[in-house]
Amino acid sequence: MESKAIHYKRVPKSQVKEAGAKGVQIRWLINKENDGAPNFAMRLFEVEPDGYTPRHSHDWEHEVFILEGEGIAFCSGTETQIKSGFVVFVPPNIEHYFRNTGKRILRFLCLIPNK
Amino acid sequence: MESKAIHYKRVPKSQVKEAGAKGVQIRWLINKENDGAPNFAMRLFEVEPDGYTPRHSHDWEHEVFILEGEGIAFCSGTETQIKSGFVVFVPPNIEHYFRNTGKRILRFLCLIPNK
Repeated sequence: MESKAIHYKRVPKSQVKEAGAKGVQIRWLINKENDGAPNFAMRLFEVEPDGYTPRHSHDWEHEVFILEGEGIAFCSGTETQIKSGFVVFVPPNIEHYFRNTGKRILRFLCLIPNK
Repeated sequence: MESKAIHYKRVPKSQVKEAGAKGVQIRWLINKENDGAPNFAMRLFEVEPDGYTPRHSHDWEHEVFILEGEGIAFCSGTETQIKSGFVVFVPPNIEHYFRNTGKRILRFLCLIPNK
């Protein structure tokens, strides 16, 4: 297991193909497969204007930090306006999505436990 | 366990008093104690110009994302220049520190597994 320190733009991105996603790309910044990260993974999401992540729930949590842009976080039945500097905690089994309501890319970190 | 979505500046900060730290403040954005986060914790560190975190190692990993400012990440015997957008993975048992070499606050997220 080796340390690393790189700019996120050097990490490849790919389209999120999950049903219910629109205009969402993901970069796996730190994870078990590539880095040997023992407990959890750091991903960076980029959502185009008018794009959104799937409305879904699952039995693991999200720890989210909004880097750039603006939008809505839907969680536990409530929509919250979010922008750079917002922290979002999505507990396991809570329905949620993120939607870009701005004119620029909505960019956020979303961390999940290893499976 | 409840969801939350708030700006990080609403989360209280406190001085890091660990020996070897200079000019470092911490905000526990998401953790087990306050939020019931089941697996890992998100902290935000603010390091003053010329400040630094302790040079140490421990048996858990760090997953780091640089939000603002510039500085040096020391890890595995190597110093890397870091700035906004850099990702740093510090595996367990690797000596490391972060130092602010800029004129503004160095602000970064650092996530750790629950103990």
